[in-house]
Amino acid sequence: MLNTPQDSPSTSTGTKALSDIRILDLTQFEAGPSCTQMLGWLGADVIKVEPPGMGEQGRRASTDSPEVDSVYFMLLNANKRSLTCNLKSEKGKDIIRALIAESDVFIENFGPGVIERLGFSYEEVSRINPRIVYAQIKGFDADGPYAKLLSFDNIAQAAGGSLSVTGDADGRPLTPGVNVGDTGAGLHCSVGILAALHQRERTGKGQRVLINMQEVVINFGRILYAAQAIFGRAVPRRGNSHIMGAAAPCEVYPCKGGGPNDYCLIYSSRAGNKQWESLLKVMGKEELLGDPRFASPQLRYDNSAVINEFITEWSLQRDKYECMRILGEAGVPASAVFDTMELYEDPALRKQGAFVTLPHADRGDFTMPGCPVRMSDSPPTPFAAPLLGDGNDGILAELIGLSTQDIEELRRDKVI
Amino acid sequence: MLNTPQDSPSTSTGTKALSDIRILDLTQFEAGPSCTQMLGWLGADVIKVEPPGMGEQGRRASTDSPEVDSVYFMLLNANKRSLTCNLKSEKGKDIIRALIAESDVFIENFGPGVIERLGFSYEEVSRINPRIVYAQIKGFDADGPYAKLLSFDNIAQAAGGSLSVTGDADGRPLTPGVNVGDTGAGLHCSVGILAALHQRERTGKGQRVLINMQEVVINFGRILYAAQAIFGRAVPRRGNSHIMGAAAPCEVYPCKGGGPNDYCLIYSSRAGNKQWESLLKVMGKEELLGDPRFASPQLRYDNSAVINEFITEWSLQRDKYECMRILGEAGVPASAVFDTMELYEDPALRKQGAFVTLPHADRGDFTMPGCPVRMSDSPPTPFAAPLLGDGNDGILAELIGLSTQDIEELRRDKVI
Repeated sequence: MLNTPQDSPSTSTGTKALSDIRILDLTQFEAGPSCTQMLGWLGADVIKVEPPGMGEQGRRASTDSPEVDSVYFMLLNANKRSLTCNLKSEKGKDIIRALIAESDVFIENFGPGVIERLGFSYEEVSRINPRIVYAQIKGFDADGPYAKLLSFDNIAQAAGGSLSVTGDADGRPLTPGVNVGDTGAGLHCSVGILAALHQRERTGKGQRVLINMQEVVINFGRILYAAQAIFGRAVPRRGNSHIMGAAAPCEVYPCKGGGPNDYCLIYSSRAGNKQWESLLKVMGKEELLGDPRFASPQLRYDNSAVINEFITEWSLQRDKYECMRILGEAGVPASAVFDTMELYEDPALRKQGAFVTLPHADRGDFTMPGCPVRMSDSPPTPFAAPLLGDGNDGILAELIGLSTQDIEELRRDKVI
Repeated sequence: MLNTPQDSPSTSTGTKALSDIRILDLTQFEAGPSCTQMLGWLGADVIKVEPPGMGEQGRRASTDSPEVDSVYFMLLNANKRSLTCNLKSEKGKDIIRALIAESDVFIENFGPGVIERLGFSYEEVSRINPRIVYAQIKGFDADGPYAKLLSFDNIAQAAGGSLSVTGDADGRPLTPGVNVGDTGAGLHCSVGILAALHQRERTGKGQRVLINMQEVVINFGRILYAAQAIFGRAVPRRGNSHIMGAAAPCEVYPCKGGGPNDYCLIYSSRAGNKQWESLLKVMGKEELLGDPRFASPQLRYDNSAVINEFITEWSLQRDKYECMRILGEAGVPASAVFDTMELYEDPALRKQGAFVTLPHADRGDFTMPGCPVRMSDSPPTPFAAPLLGDGNDGILAELIGLSTQDIEELRRDKVI
């Protein structure tokens, strides 16, 4: 059977970290789903609630084929069961109320005000189940001037300062290509949910966890405020230079191949000279050891034009992997600029579980990034994103005790 | 008295989520300290172990004044107590062993192999206290080809694919200005630690949690693999365009003022036309409603030159805040590009706790980003980073039962 959990490898306890936790998941797109996917990877039973018919909007977002669920959806909804439920119908609301009573966590990331209009505010949900942890992800603080504005990853990154420090000094602000706002919010929310579950062990009570994406992005940029304190002004864009300034080399250097990602990032820490001296030795530039122009990280930064020139000469003679290997073994911080295809096809990353291949009913074997949290007593047992409504029968029978006939009726009435 | 917790606001339980958790924290710089700061904000008792004399290296990193702790250190070490301890001395190791027996979590992010050489491998620590959660953050997978390489935030971002998708199409790879690698690793590690503590409630046993920064960065870029599946090749850099393509507008537009961050990011979702139509109305471009050139997100992307022209004309007549307000109220996703000084000085962000001002013995009132995880029953009670060794007497007396004389001896012998 496809899309079901694989057997766990044997462990000392035989269960996963969160195997006693049930999550009623009303989220969509990335910020919410990335949170519940993480909790699902760690063993929680995630019930993904979706509108009957089309399902969550992400199922059809940027798809390569309208006949099957989008890859985008697959990447964010592993380790979940799908329940279709029309939240606007009274019978649908009854189902949700019954499931609230059976769940440990309720989570949503609708636009401002939506969940309250649906009748599932914190007050209403916690009245049904005082033990429930009620989690929400919003774009901005609910009492601030932007409370009613829509948010997406790039909006949150602009609002949280990330764009202002990404790009070249003479260029416009740029959006980082990774989703600090969305997945970052999902991770903060996971932390809050788990902390609230921990507190519940003592208090017997749930509570509300609230995340706003603007503050999430500010948290990822917290050390910028050290640079600001030193410069006495807003932190500028600096290309690939360290945001605190005062370190060189700190740049991507072109390597053999000439492709758009044939570069190696080479860095020498702003704490001392050891890595710099290792770099000179491995590049055969011993004559510069002790050169007063390069005697400190700050001086190297001031003279980085000279440094960049001889490093480029060296890097252009090798491919990026060789640069990374030679420098890395010499104790110089360096990494090839890996592109997504290289990561996806890397056998070592497959072997370590950074990418996992999961069977899916419509797509066959599907490969995606796995769970980066490794736990010795809670091994990853990933399974692919659910087909729409694949959990309906099981969830409604097991958890609410509905009969086959009840379920058939709900289906006929388009409640599920 | 400075640098001590403020009284908690009254809550229904009177304690914080993690107030029963003690963390023995051997971390430095950002990846580890950002994790333990988060857990400290949520109420854990974090004992930061530092070398006697100079303390953690971060205390002197990129400092504006060598006489006091760096702002960098202050930003990452709130809500901790400091214990100085020479980990290379036998007496120092005895102290650590005694504290392991009294702690719930042990965490370190030394370079590869260091903690084992110090005698505190997972096996040794869990032998002393089988209930302890043992957490580690490394740059790369311990069994992979890069296991021995050093990592920093920018190295992890290059290795995890973040640089390959940040920047303009015709430019070199760029490093995002926010610390996806370091703080991202800290958040993943927080999730793992809390999940392990949850599992311990059932099993009575701790376990090992292991995070590598390369996989952390891959996780932040997971939806890139949807774009790759559609394009059939590595995801390219696209400036400010949506990484999945097929959406316009999706750019920063210049606003009145002309400064480096006088831009407003304006986006129209790739799911439908509603936001696009709202944008046309609010910009007085109703004549373009129904124009076939802009009938779908993909068509708008193909014709984005036309779109960018009339939006720029509109945005240049207003400052970025006005652009954000007008568009936001009309339901068009938009955000001013906030710089760090604007965020730092924003009264609304201060009021909501996005920035907090904490008294510090040497620096007086110090303002820094607060905890973005809001919990209704675990209110934030931030306190400033500890002075070096400020917890020595209390920790050694309370937790190990050492006498004033014992402690004096340790101090004399430079063990603490």
